[in-house]
Order: sequence, then structure tokens, then C-alpha cells
Amino acid sequence: MASHAESTARLRLGVVGLGRAFTLMLPTFLADRRVQLVGACDPREQARRQFERDFDAPAYETIEDLAADSNLDALYIASPHQFHAEHTRIAAANRKHVLVEKPMALSLDECDRMIADCADAGVKLIVGHCHSFDTPYLRTRELIGSGEFGAVKMIQALNYTDYLQRPRRPEELSTAEGGGAVFSQAAHQVDVVRLLAGSRATRVRAAVGNWDPARPTEGAYTATLWFGNGAFASITYNGYGYFDSDEWMDWVGEMGKPKNPETYGGARRLLQQVQTADEEARLKAEGTYGGTRYVSPSTADDATAFQHFGPIIVSCEGGDLRPMADAVMIYRPHSRDRMMLERPTVPRSEVIDELYLAQFYGVTPLHDGAWARDTLEICLAMLRSSEEQRDITLGVNVEDTQSCETP
Amino acid sequence: MASHAESTARLRLGVVGLGRAFTLMLPTFLADRRVQLVGACDPREQARRQFERDFDAPAYETIEDLAADSNLDALYIASPHQFHAEHTRIAAANRKHVLVEKPMALSLDECDRMIADCADAGVKLIVGHCHSFDTPYLRTRELIGSGEFGAVKMIQALNYTDYLQRPRRPEELSTAEGGGAVFSQAAHQVDVVRLLAGSRATRVRAAVGNWDPARPTEGAYTATLWFGNGAFASITYNGYGYFDSDEWMDWVGEMGKPKNPETYGGARRLLQQVQTADEEARLKAEGTYGGTRYVSPSTADDATAFQHFGPIIVSCEGGDLRPMADAVMIYRPHSRDRMMLERPTVPRSEVIDELYLAQFYGVTPLHDGAWARDTLEICLAMLRSSEEQRDITLGVNVEDTQSCETP
Ligand SMILES: NC(=O)c1ccc[n+]([C@@H]2O[C@H](COP(=O)([O-])OP(=O)(O)OC[C@H]3O[C@@H](n4cnc5c(N)ncnc54)[C@H](O)[C@@H]3O)[C@@H](O)[C@H]2O)c1
Ligand SMILES: NC(=O)c1ccc[n+]([C@@H]2O[C@H](COP(=O)([O-])OP(=O)(O)OC[C@H]3O[C@@H](n4cnc5c(N)ncnc54)[C@H](O)[C@@H]3O)[C@@H](O)[C@H]2O)c1
Repeated sequence: MASHAESTARLRLGVVGLGRAFTLMLPTFLADRRVQLVGACDPREQARRQFERDFDAPAYETIEDLAADSNLDALYIASPHQFHAEHTRIAAANRKHVLVEKPMALSLDECDRMIADCADAGVKLIVGHCHSFDTPYLRTRELIGSGEFGAVKMIQALNYTDYLQRPRRPEELSTAEGGGAVFSQAAHQVDVVRLLAGSRATRVRAAVGNWDPARPTEGAYTATLWFGNGAFASITYNGYGYFDSDEWMDWVGEMGKPKNPETYGGARRLLQQVQTADEEARLKAEGTYGGTRYVSPSTADDATAFQHFGPIIVSCEGGDLRPMADAVMIYRPHSRDRMMLERPTVPRSEVIDELYLAQFYGVTPLHDGAWARDTLEICLAMLRSSEEQRDITLGVNVEDTQSCETP
Repeated sequence: MASHAESTARLRLGVVGLGRAFTLMLPTFLADRRVQLVGACDPREQARRQFERDFDAPAYETIEDLAADSNLDALYIASPHQFHAEHTRIAAANRKHVLVEKPMALSLDECDRMIADCADAGVKLIVGHCHSFDTPYLRTRELIGSGEFGAVKMIQALNYTDYLQRPRRPEELSTAEGGGAVFSQAAHQVDVVRLLAGSRATRVRAAVGNWDPARPTEGAYTATLWFGNGAFASITYNGYGYFDSDEWMDWVGEMGKPKNPETYGGARRLLQQVQTADEEARLKAEGTYGGTRYVSPSTADDATAFQHFGPIIVSCEGGDLRPMADAVMIYRPHSRDRMMLERPTVPRSEVIDELYLAQFYGVTPLHDGAWARDTLEICLAMLRSSEEQRDITLGVNVEDTQSCETP
């Protein structure tokens, strides 16, 4: 990357939705010199106040006002799922590049419109953060690309977390409104697995688990994906908060930070303080930007390793690869090695890499609309496969059969 | 159990096939006072010689001669898969109880005949050793049965081994002859998962991996099983010898002994010494009873933990259970505990428990013919599901719809 451009042109970013997703991206925005936060919008007054104080920049009530601001290059859309399509439309109409959170939207129609809106306006569309941006997966993909290990044949991914025990907005607990582990968590896991498989997924068979009457949405799932190149993947997720698979990631948590196993059950204990859906939504908001339980990111808090989405084993013809938070484990015929990765300096800087290259150098992003649409198609197919008890063939109603083969 | 009977009546056992399976059971037969080895048969002269020396008991060339021996209560049939049905028939015809190795046979027709032959002769039929006999699984099943954790909802089982890198007979590398990981290894994994699910499997969807042209049978698979009680399971196996999932079992190996991760690649190195299928079969035989590479079990060699079949997580409504080699990890809402198991005194004594109770007390064994037939049905369905790319419904052509619900 041209260091000249990097030192002069900064990406002027506006934030749509100052909630948990923003809270998780904030350390990146603060630490990555290529980005400057120049505005925001959120219906929560607390959050707007804190944004104006912290960044000396305007925080609006609505996206319309923010998007109209001519001082902006791009919008980071971190509002709830159900707003992603409409907010992308508004951003594009105002000729702002779009970085929109996963999942891209709630339906393939919405995805198609988002892609068309951005194409028509000539702006870039990137979907993320998503864990498939994480360096260990990108490095594993490079190792696969080197050809040393032969073709990818089978991938096993699993993740056991407390996802469904954390405080949620009502729509996050209703599948019809985009709630549950398939929309929110498979969006990561499927994306990572697709990236590593290096080929378009052709079919899916899934079983979903919706076991807690008090939180009536998917908290768990298992699925098999088949890919055009003959590889298949088994993915399993459990967000009910018992076994924690970070034990198999050297006790490094999803955010790349050391995790203390003794905090077991913390999410569940916190959740027990609330009685109603309103109280729960407030509890969630209080923990994010502007909230009373919000803690600003400090440098002390820096990640020591990369972020990740749980244990993954990629089996190739000639070896296995296992991305870890600080390394890629390489299992060759006669030796196993821990290929250490450089320590991350800025968390999630991979997201800014793509956004920056797209905006200033016109590079087509890996995580563009077409890519993320295919992930959503798989997530929707998982729900349908479980419901209809059969394989769902992917891409059959799609005119656009553009290949997703990775180089 | 009546200690009087235990101290007086010993189970007089004849061994059919003195190969690797016998080698793995021998420490049990030597250490468990309830058993006495009183005869054997094997076409290999080396093995017969050693048996006669070690046990001062006859070793015949054929099962007919052994089965006719009136000094015997039961036969342990550890010949290759393709002989299980015929050898069971001969045992039953001679009114000997049958302990036959997994997989029970190669087809459901064979299983049906074995069950009928034993029923007609009034002898017991037990299929094992199989890892579902292992105490950690039996204890996990008891914990589930206690009701504390509510219904089982999802099971994840995986096992990454060097199964396909170990020396094999030609038929072990030919699926049509019962070779490959589905016949030999799913026979364990499916059995364990069925035991823990506690309900009859109703359907299966699988993908199998056959990736090494030099060893053209299944070395890997992944499958989803659905059960009558609404639970589902995801099982994955990879026997190509790269990543070793015993890392997630505290580096305790399948046989309950500490494993040195530094021996990585040992099976593959050994295998590289052979050029032909004959040489490979000889290499296998040399490592078993009577062979030049055979090492007698010593007491120094005692297992320090139970045997196991890789990482397994059982997710129930109210907690997760994770059977380990020396403990069951219990994940409750607010605490996690490592429930330590007493150290095993005799390896695989669980097999003798069932055989002894069946023979002397008429107790119906858990691992009887009907039970093992259902496991083979699932294994065959896995192969078919992968081939036909669809779910296979289980039990549809079966008149006998006897329930397999565990108590
Ligand atoms: N990539 C990740 O690691 C990650 C993590 C969490 C959430 N997310 C994604 O981010 C999105 C938001 O989820 P969240 O957990 O941050 O939710 P949240 O409720 O914590 O935050 C949403 C924020 O958007 C605001 N908002 C609501 N309506 C708005 C509107 N019309 N215009 C502007 N702002 C509006 C809310 O007031 C709130 O501050 C979801 O799509 C979610 O999947 C991604
Ligand atoms: N439960 C376990 O842990 C386990 C482990 C290994 C094998 N097994 C099972 O045991 C069976 C044997 O497999 P193995 O690996 O021991 O094979 P193996 O080749 O090591 O042993 C088979 C033995 O049977 C003998 N044999 C061949 N034909 C015979 C006949 N007609 N009559 C009597 N003996 C005969 C062979 O000479 C050999 O000694 C298989 O069904 C296998 O699945 C189970």
C-alpha cells in the first residue's frame, strides 16, 4: 500500500448505530490511523452525547441527517439487522461507501437491492466485521493457496459460547425478525468456512436447536455444507452457555484476549437480574457506548492475539491446518509446527484494510455484497433444511452464477 | 453381583482369531479373574504356538475344532468382519455364548441371522468390545438418566486419529469387503452417541471422505443423526493421521494411556517401510499376538485412565456433559465440575461385566445383537446417504420396531 496516501488521506467515517457492534469496533477506529470518525447517528441520546464529547463531531438522531453530511466518505452501518437494507439504500443515495455489519440483511431480496443500490451509486459495499476477516483464517487460506497441502477435503468448525445468555433486544430473540444463532452466529461460522473451502457451497443440511422457552429462538445448530470442489464441512454452534470451546483455543476469547475460565456462568448471572424484555434490552444498551455500564477501551485492554470464532480443523489431502488465535497449527505428514503469527497491533485492522483499499484504490473487496449474500443464502437454507428435513440446494434460483472460487 | 459365584464360577472363553483385536483384549483377559482362556483358533501357526505356550491350552486351526470343545462356555469372535456371521453360527450351533467384535457383520441380513442363530440355540450374543462400553460414557448416561440436566438435545463427537495410516489387511482397505472408517470406526462413534442420546435414531445424513488413492476406502466422514426423542448428533471422524484430537482428551490415548505427542507421524513412518499389500498385511500380523514385533502386555503398561473414542460434548436442556478419560466434566448453569472417576483396575472390564452377567445371571446385555444391528444399520445408511446425497430414514424396512430407549 502506498504509504504516502496512507499518511495523507484518511477515511472519514460516519457511524450508524452506536451499540454493541460499534463498541466492539471502536478500539479499531481509535487505533487505526487510516480512519477518522467524523459523525454518527443513533436514537439513543446518551450515546449521541458521549459521541459528541469523545470525538468533537456531530451525532444525529437519524441516518438521513448523517448521510447528508458532505464531510463523510463512508458509513459504518451497525444498526440492528432489520435496518441494514434501508440504511444501505440511504448511504448509497448520498454517495457514501458502505461498511455494513453482518448479517448483511434478513432476506436475499434485501441483499440484491443493497448490491444494486451501491452499484448504481458507484459506491463500494463491504459486509463486516465478520470473523472471516481474522488474520488466522486469511493466513490459513494463503497456506491452502500455496498448494503444499493439496485440495481441501473436510472442515470441522465448532463454537460453544454464551451467545444466547447475553442480554438481547426483543427482535434478537425472534427468528422471524432475524434473531437467533443462525442469523447472528452462523453468519460468522459459515463465512469462515466458505473462505477456507475456497469454492462455492452447493448444498446444505442442518438441524437447529431452539430449546429455551424463555428465549424462543435458535441457540444452537449443526450443519453440513457441500462445496463445488468436492470439499464438505461440518459446523456446530451452541450458544446456551455451558461448555466453552475457548478451552480448545488456549483460553483466548473471541476478541483475542485471554479469558479467565473462572468467570464461568457470568452471562447467566447477569441476565438473572432482569425480569422483562424491556429491562433486558436496557441492560444490553447500558453495556454499550454511552451506557452506565460502558467501559471505554483502554490501551491496557489491547488484544494479545487475533480474534477468532472457535476451533476449526481444515483437512487437506496432504495435511491438516488449524487456525489458532496467535498461530496456525500445521500438521504435515512427518512434522507438526506452530506457525506463529505476528502479534496484532490494531484489532480488526483487516476490516480497515479492505475498506481503505476499496475506497482509495478501487480494489474489489473480498467481503463484498455478492460474497455476503451467499453466506446469508446458506443461513436461510439452514433454517429451511431443519424445518423441511432435507438437503437444500444452493444457488438454484439465482441468475447470477458468478463463481466465488478464491484465487 | 454375587461374590460367591464370582469367586467360584469362571467364564471359560475360547478365542477365535488371535490378531490385533485379541491383542487389545488380552490385558483384560489376563487381569479379570472372572475369565479363563481355555482355547483358541487361528490359521496363523505363530499365534497358535504362542497361545499354547502362554496358556497351556489348545489352539486349533479352525473354529469348528475349537467350538466342539466341551470345556468352553463362550467364544470371543475376533476374526475379520467377513467371518463374524459364520463364526457366530458355528458357536451357536455348539451352544457357546458369543462375544463378537464390532462391527457385528457386513449386512443387516447377516445380523438377523446371527440374532436368530443365537436365539434358537438359547445362547447370549454380545457385540464388543466397542467404546460404548467405556465407563466415562456409561457414567455420562447415568448422569443423563438422573434427570438433573433435562433432555439430551445435541451431541457433538469427533475423533482425529491415524486409523488409516496403520498397517491393514487388503480387505480393510476395500469398502465392499467391509473396509474403511465407516465400518470400523463409526461402529464405535455411532454406538457411543446412540448410548448417550438414549433414543432410537430415526434418520441420518452423511458425507464420507475417500481421499488417498493408495488406500481407496473411507478414511473420514461426517454425519448428522436424528433421534426419536428430538435430539440430534453431529459426528466427525478423520483417520488420515494429521491433527490428533487426543490433544483435547488431555493427551490420553484411545487405550486410556498417556500419549506422547512427540511420536507424531509414527504410523505413517512405519507404513512407508512396506511396498505391497502382502507386506503390509504381514506387518500388521507381526505386531499382533505371536508376531515378531509383538510385545506382551506387562503390568507396567497398565492404563491410568479409561479408554475413550475422542472428544464428545453432550448438550442437555440444563447443562453440558463431557466424558473424559478419567472424569466427566459437568457444566451446570452456575458451576462446572470435574467429576473424577475411580481409576480403572482392569482395562475393558466393562465387557466382562456384561458377558458375565449375561452368562451366569441371564441378564439381557445392553450391547446385544439387536442393539449392534441398529448401529450397523446407521453405518450402512451413512455410506448410502453420502452416495445418494440425501437423508436415509432408519428402521423403515424393519418389522421389529422394538424400542431402544435406555432406561
Ligand atoms: N461483528 C460483530 O462482532 C458484531 C457484534 C455485535 C453485533 N453485530 C451486528 O451489529 C448490528 C447491531 O447489533 P448490536 O448488537 O450492536 O445491537 P445494539 O442494540 O447493541 O446496537 C444497535 C444500535 O443501533 C441503534 N439504532 C436502532 N435503530 C436505529 C436507527 N434506525 N438508526 C440508527 N441507529 C439505530 C440503537 O439505539 C443501538 O445503539 C447487528 O446487525 C449485529 O448482527 C456484529
Ligand atoms: N474393539 C476394538 O478395539 C477392535 C480393535 C481391532 C479390531 N477389532 C475388530 O476385530 C476384528 C479383527 O480385526 P483385527 O484388527 O484384529 O484383524 P487381525 O488381522 O489383526 O486379526 C484377525 C485374526 O483372525 C485370524 N483369522 C483369519 N481368518 C480366521 C478364521 N477363519 N478363523 C479364525 N481366525 C481367523 C487372523 O489370522 C488374525 O490372527 C475385526 O472385526 C475388527 O473390527 C476391534
